[in-house]
Amino acid sequence: MARILTGIQSSGRPHLGNILGAIKPAIDLSKQPDNESFLFIADLHSLTTIKDGPMRREFTRAVAATWLAFGLDTEKNTFWRQSRVAEHTELAWHLSCFTPFAMLNNATSFKEKSNRSASAVNAGLFVYPVLQAADILLYDAEIIPVGKDQRQHIEMTRDIASTFNHQYEDEVFVLPEPRIDDRLMTIPGIDGAKMSKSYNNYIDIFLPENELWKVIKKIKSDSTPLEEPKNPDADITFQLYSLLASDEQIATMRGLYEGGNYGYGMAKKAFYELIVEQFADERERFNYYMTHHEALEAELQAGEAKARIVAGKTIARVREKLGFS
Amino acid sequence: MARILTGIQSSGRPHLGNILGAIKPAIDLSKQPDNESFLFIADLHSLTTIKDGPMRREFTRAVAATWLAFGLDTEKNTFWRQSRVAEHTELAWHLSCFTPFAMLNNATSFKEKSNRSASAVNAGLFVYPVLQAADILLYDAEIIPVGKDQRQHIEMTRDIASTFNHQYEDEVFVLPEPRIDDRLMTIPGIDGAKMSKSYNNYIDIFLPENELWKVIKKIKSDSTPLEEPKNPDADITFQLYSLLASDEQIATMRGLYEGGNYGYGMAKKAFYELIVEQFADERERFNYYMTHHEALEAELQAGEAKARIVAGKTIARVREKLGFS
Repeated sequence: MARILTGIQSSGRPHLGNILGAIKPAIDLSKQPDNESFLFIADLHSLTTIKDGPMRREFTRAVAATWLAFGLDTEKNTFWRQSRVAEHTELAWHLSCFTPFAMLNNATSFKEKSNRSASAVNAGLFVYPVLQAADILLYDAEIIPVGKDQRQHIEMTRDIASTFNHQYEDEVFVLPEPRIDDRLMTIPGIDGAKMSKSYNNYIDIFLPENELWKVIKKIKSDSTPLEEPKNPDADITFQLYSLLASDEQIATMRGLYEGGNYGYGMAKKAFYELIVEQFADERERFNYYMTHHEALEAELQAGEAKARIVAGKTIARVREKLGFS
Repeated sequence: MARILTGIQSSGRPHLGNILGAIKPAIDLSKQPDNESFLFIADLHSLTTIKDGPMRREFTRAVAATWLAFGLDTEKNTFWRQSRVAEHTELAWHLSCFTPFAMLNNATSFKEKSNRSASAVNAGLFVYPVLQAADILLYDAEIIPVGKDQRQHIEMTRDIASTFNHQYEDEVFVLPEPRIDDRLMTIPGIDGAKMSKSYNNYIDIFLPENELWKVIKKIKSDSTPLEEPKNPDADITFQLYSLLASDEQIATMRGLYEGGNYGYGMAKKAFYELIVEQFADERERFNYYMTHHEALEAELQAGEAKARIVAGKTIARVREKLGFS
């Protein structure tokens, strides 16, 4: 049984790019019989950038509702909010005393952030990799699926854990392995650039139908007249459609593009209908959780109780070594 | 009712200098009817320098036993171990996201430490003032008695609290006032320099009598022959004796010094006897707590339950503002 840990950003409501690029692959991974996934909403980390309380509460709910809507099995796996398990910040303090100042000061992520806007740099951004190390080490995680930009943080976690294990001549912490996912999909946004909240080019599949249609209609297309044949491979709507459609549906759509007398508006309509049809259950479940906070709370609190049991065992080992027990 | 907060270092077993210079004055302050004292053993802070677990456990016990031995009223006041109240590290994380990186980087204490031994500087030393701010703000402390070297840290606490209050347009935190104690006594060690663990010139009043006598005998004195008169004001034993003795005893001792035929060894014996006599109850209580861990635990755990109630209310206000509730 491999223990996989994933921290989930809660800096916005998940869009189609997040869902296809991160959430669905993680849920697929969590379904494999040999895996046990620990998935937490990194709401403490979000405080380094988001100060607005109601916004964080809303984003956290939306993120939780999305994962539940997409069928995360919370019995088999563990799903919780970082801020609700006190061991995260406790271990972060302990680890900070085993982390060289220079290691954090040289971290690429901090250098980039601190160059970008020096006056706004808070200490949370600086110690963030230590909290991340605590997130990982608390759960004896073995595998951390990450993008290339996060590789250095996993290396730092390994360094901190090794220093600690060496100091106390014991395997207090499991050393995690990064799993760099090369085949990470880049999902295009409605303007063709990478779909991203910050580019404001994203598709929120949980919008009410009329609002969703308004967004889909805005997908960029060229000015080829209706009658003429169109190149599906150069069109954003076709690319997006292909991400959701079956091979048969894709082949049919390709034929329509190439046959002429098929407008982009019609392709957009087909894509819109595919979303509404394919994500009917997910949309319903998402709306249910977003309007039944107590049901969402119950799921999360059950996960937090499970997380605390695992984190509690690790922190007990740590406290024993440090003389805090 | 003024709320006074004091963090107690747990980096060693308290000696006579700590007792006369810090512990007794703090206990006297806590006895004043208008004061309510919050006194915590800063064992989390000790992790920035001490890695040895059994040593920290022993020091923490000795510190707690000393305060209890000297009559701290734990009913009226609140006395706890920082590491046992999870709100300290949680609030420290939150506050770090409201603390400019540059503020910590410019802190005098960090500059001194980081210049001293660059390779050993850990991140805990760097973020230490943020944990200190959390220690203070969690308890709505109004007055922080500090030495001059700690003034900057209280200013940082006020800055962080103001930033937070301003961000949420509410008085979430009480702004603490430093109370700089000018009349802080410097207690001489057995070599005449300031009594300090790091100079190894300290008097541990809790030692068994024979060991205590061995230390007292080592107090530095000049080579004036037994028969000759001696200058009490130039002698370390006389200075130490005067710190404990009554005015009458001091006058008598002065006479003996100035009359001649009174040796330093006799003065040392008198000082030793004064310690044993004056601290008889404290020595007994200290030994009781050091050999009855369950009694010491019971006192501390009762204090921790009280501390958690106060800290819990503050953290609830903070979580509400941040959207973590």
